[in-house]
Amino acid sequence: MKVQIIGLGLIGGSFALALRKASPGVEILGSDVNEDHLQKAQNLKLIDRPAGLDEVENADVVIIAVPVDVAKKVAIEVLDHVGINTLVFDAGSTKTGLCESIAAHPNRRNFLAAHPIAGTEFSGPAAAVEDLFCNKTNIICEVEKTAFKLQERALEIFQKLGMRIRYMDPKAHDRHIAYVSHLSHISSFMLGKTVLEKERNEKDIFDLAGSGFASTVRLAKSSPAMWTPIFQQNKDNILETLEEYINNLTKFKSLIENDNFNEVFLEMERTNHIKKILNGIN
Amino acid sequence: MKVQIIGLGLIGGSFALALRKASPGVEILGSDVNEDHLQKAQNLKLIDRPAGLDEVENADVVIIAVPVDVAKKVAIEVLDHVGINTLVFDAGSTKTGLCESIAAHPNRRNFLAAHPIAGTEFSGPAAAVEDLFCNKTNIICEVEKTAFKLQERALEIFQKLGMRIRYMDPKAHDRHIAYVSHLSHISSFMLGKTVLEKERNEKDIFDLAGSGFASTVRLAKSSPAMWTPIFQQNKDNILETLEEYINNLTKFKSLIENDNFNEVFLEMERTNHIKKILNGIN
Repeated sequence: MKVQIIGLGLIGGSFALALRKASPGVEILGSDVNEDHLQKAQNLKLIDRPAGLDEVENADVVIIAVPVDVAKKVAIEVLDHVGINTLVFDAGSTKTGLCESIAAHPNRRNFLAAHPIAGTEFSGPAAAVEDLFCNKTNIICEVEKTAFKLQERALEIFQKLGMRIRYMDPKAHDRHIAYVSHLSHISSFMLGKTVLEKERNEKDIFDLAGSGFASTVRLAKSSPAMWTPIFQQNKDNILETLEEYINNLTKFKSLIENDNFNEVFLEMERTNHIKKILNGIN
Repeated sequence: MKVQIIGLGLIGGSFALALRKASPGVEILGSDVNEDHLQKAQNLKLIDRPAGLDEVENADVVIIAVPVDVAKKVAIEVLDHVGINTLVFDAGSTKTGLCESIAAHPNRRNFLAAHPIAGTEFSGPAAAVEDLFCNKTNIICEVEKTAFKLQERALEIFQKLGMRIRYMDPKAHDRHIAYVSHLSHISSFMLGKTVLEKERNEKDIFDLAGSGFASTVRLAKSSPAMWTPIFQQNKDNILETLEEYINNLTKFKSLIENDNFNEVFLEMERTNHIKKILNGIN
């Protein structure tokens, strides 16, 4: 099997490592606009050698793992070059814009829109992890628009990597994921910002931080280059989640202001119910 | 050494386990208003036997590990009963109210106000962890108000358990800890609430949640009985942090609304600086 990976960061690099383990003998080619990342990906043996768009025609699988704004353009360029049997899939955190941008492409059936719910707060080829996708959910959108044979090949690969498959339409995906992923990143970034601002005047504040703070603020280490276009493409859903989140915070603040600690207790108790749900995630 | 622990939940229970390991031969007595917890603490061998206030006089160390509203009353009751050589310390997440409530007590010098920055999102005796305090910060307030000999004994114990000591005045403690601990809990609870509310209409939403969401929402599993009095006692500081957090979220939302994604990028990039700081915590 010949795989070509476009974008050799955390996600692209982790696909390389996972595929090497799952499919011995696989040939992995790759590219990255960042020369340094491309060199590192070779040094780390993520890819066997660099390859450009002109080689896409001969690939069995092309994986697009670049920021979601770039992915829209890259997907079209790749589809312009695919062979009749080339499967192309992406791994982006927004799906509506991408699916719309390729909807009318003559080679649309070579494409499968995917979103593996997997990642860490780190980025770049050195952040790649072999088992990143193991036991993770992979959301596939508009599966009916992909050629049967290529659907099959994609599912075989995802199964080998240990992923659970969920099918959704792109709009539902973007709405749901705004809540369980995009909002978490904003809450974390703004929490980090709030404490950093305070630190300017009150030194040593972080010396008092424990594991609870580290956990809630972990995602504030994430890459702005990856997340800015996600927020841009999922703007409407994110604004809705942010509005609801800010309203809930404002209401909780009012309860404290008005010494309604009975209701503060009940608010937290009702939310404790999330324990059961989270046990299913971890 | 004879230790008496009042409150046999996560913190009290973890002190029991850690002291047994650090001081072989220690005798540990304990009490809990919750009969079930008291029984469990005996079954788990956290304590050797139950003991009431009447035995405080003969204890070398009394540890108060109850919710912060109860701690104020318990501290006074314990100080009413201490022997001349009894060290009493607490472990609560707010310090101003407690220090004020015991300020005029004739046995104030038997007391040391402490706050080990250690915990998990779980509670009760079964949640106790032997190495909970190892490599954690312990904030001590108003150390000068504790008798020299008892300061010494406390430091010996904290050192044996592997804790770093920081000295602060109670007001600075409460202000700092509002940022790096209390705010994280509220942001997490409200994030959980926002997503749970959405789930009522959109089933399966949690099926899409990954490790990022789990991390930011972990603290929403915390005990309302423990956290409500903390928010009550640290009301003013918490309202200030919440105001700043909500302002930052609202500004970020405006940037997205106005398509100012250049500034969205810069906001996140500036906050990325938190990476370096967090490396020091973990």
